[in-house]
Amino acid sequence: MSGPAVSAPDFLAQASTAVEKSMELFMEGRSLPLYRMMGYQLGWVDENGTPREANRPLRVRGALCLLAASAISGRFKDALRHAVAIELVHNYSQMHADVQEGNTERAGRGSVWWVWGPAQAINAGDGMHALARLAMFELSKDGVAPELVSDALQALDLAALDLCEGSYFDTVYQERVTILVDEYLQMTARASGALVGCATRLGAMAAGETGSSRLDALQKFGQKCGISMRLSSDLRAFWDGSDRSGPLQGRILAKKKTLPVIHALEKADVKTKRALGEIYAQRVLDPGDIEKVRGILEAAGSRAYTEQVIAKLNQEASAALADAGIGQPEADRLLEAAQFATRTSG
Amino acid sequence: MSGPAVSAPDFLAQASTAVEKSMELFMEGRSLPLYRMMGYQLGWVDENGTPREANRPLRVRGALCLLAASAISGRFKDALRHAVAIELVHNYSQMHADVQEGNTERAGRGSVWWVWGPAQAINAGDGMHALARLAMFELSKDGVAPELVSDALQALDLAALDLCEGSYFDTVYQERVTILVDEYLQMTARASGALVGCATRLGAMAAGETGSSRLDALQKFGQKCGISMRLSSDLRAFWDGSDRSGPLQGRILAKKKTLPVIHALEKADVKTKRALGEIYAQRVLDPGDIEKVRGILEAAGSRAYTEQVIAKLNQEASAALADAGIGQPEADRLLEAAQFATRTSG
Repeated sequence: MSGPAVSAPDFLAQASTAVEKSMELFMEGRSLPLYRMMGYQLGWVDENGTPREANRPLRVRGALCLLAASAISGRFKDALRHAVAIELVHNYSQMHADVQEGNTERAGRGSVWWVWGPAQAINAGDGMHALARLAMFELSKDGVAPELVSDALQALDLAALDLCEGSYFDTVYQERVTILVDEYLQMTARASGALVGCATRLGAMAAGETGSSRLDALQKFGQKCGISMRLSSDLRAFWDGSDRSGPLQGRILAKKKTLPVIHALEKADVKTKRALGEIYAQRVLDPGDIEKVRGILEAAGSRAYTEQVIAKLNQEASAALADAGIGQPEADRLLEAAQFATRTSG
Repeated sequence: MSGPAVSAPDFLAQASTAVEKSMELFMEGRSLPLYRMMGYQLGWVDENGTPREANRPLRVRGALCLLAASAISGRFKDALRHAVAIELVHNYSQMHADVQEGNTERAGRGSVWWVWGPAQAINAGDGMHALARLAMFELSKDGVAPELVSDALQALDLAALDLCEGSYFDTVYQERVTILVDEYLQMTARASGALVGCATRLGAMAAGETGSSRLDALQKFGQKCGISMRLSSDLRAFWDGSDRSGPLQGRILAKKKTLPVIHALEKADVKTKRALGEIYAQRVLDPGDIEKVRGILEAAGSRAYTEQVIAKLNQEASAALADAGIGQPEADRLLEAAQFATRTSG
């Protein structure tokens, strides 16, 4: 979801707008009702299909794809189709995740399954999954060589598969009583890191980069950013006042697993674990419980631990850009964009 | 599901076995639990991951892909990867359809969502959707030119999108009281025809065919076969004694829409419509109701109508092969394979 009253830096907002326009162009003329559900998910229409202008979400993943391209070649237009494909995969996976996790709300409105039912949300997601690739095929119209189109598609499919592998563990972990911190971090690398890593890799590929070590470094940058975005939203769910009434807090009330809680349940002393366990053993939590949990996590050092993990991820992201030989001001822009995403995305 | 005690003609069984072996090779070495669910869906393992040999389903769509290739070039090995991709799309879509329709059973066992829950069945389906394309990318390893790989992938994605468009209407129609025969037939063209049409088109492409009119004709052949398979299972749900205790009859008890009922509700006289309406207004049907419905549908000519539609589809399939210039014995084999699928597949 987009954050509270924080506005994105200009270059990020511009990149996001460029992605948005390309998405609109690509989706234009698709009039079957299946596409209305997709338009709703993308924030373009209400549930009756009436256009809405306000509250377009920031296309963080697509924008990072463009910025990675720009860091290599100085321009981002070659990566627009890649960015569209990335955003479509991201949104397909959100539609399915909302069904899987029973999230009734997305970006301040009813989620697609909540409005149209789970069966249609599965359809809309599956259709958008196919469309993501068809968006990439449009590269052929731009005269891009078939082997480059094929390489880009393959990178996208590998990330889509990683996402599913991550989502498998995410689902398992939500149902398990205890998970280890390492398991959770490995899962987030797939479920949250893979697609952002693919976005920055594709951006570099679109800009003509062919050296595998540089592509790997840019992918690593994106992957670290993606994990950091997830863990930051874990943290903000407890400690970002501005989001407390929103879906982030809903995740806590629904007892979704977050790094601070996982850390405390694994590492804290027996008394702390027991106190936390008693709260989480309730069928549902209420807002008063959150205050208690927050105190426990602070005392157990779990907030500090999560902040350290995020700081380390951000350092690694920065180091990956250095490894890729990305100079200034491009490296700073990529880092600033990622930082902004970390502060605002869930 | 595979049929009762009817065995497939040798050439069809051989083609199916070749597809099966290629699928096994492609999936080999994937050991995450996500792939165990896929192996279960494919009939390879039980829910604990223990291999099972018996009851491998006939890979009708993959086999038709191989037979289409063979009809063009005299051999089918060039189409093995395409056939694998087709079967993976087919199986991904079955896993999702079972969630969407609440089918608890598939091929005589619990469906994937019934065993692992809907969230994991969505993951397994999404993962298999991504894998289908990765299977096609293996063509590059065989030295197939990038533009041919790209063309094949695009055909597959277009079919996958068609499938979702069809599935959208399928879901809507299941919830609507009345549908027109024409609406139902148009829906089945997408939901059931698109993928088989893609299978035969891809087979021809794999065999080196580049002429668009011939490719279109072979696609049309497959599409007509796919629709015929669906309508034949609608018919067998009522009039094939051997299947009465199985999932086909379950579809009727669950009041799933079928062509004979849709026909009677649109075309029969008022008295017949009322009698049928009263039975279908019950919350659930019992086996005694099926006997009554069967009588009503016979009297209303709805059985005969459905048989005529199927006969016409089969004629059109045959004519499409003639248009494609497919001679003997290849045309007879394709038709025999399709006929067999029509008698046994759901």
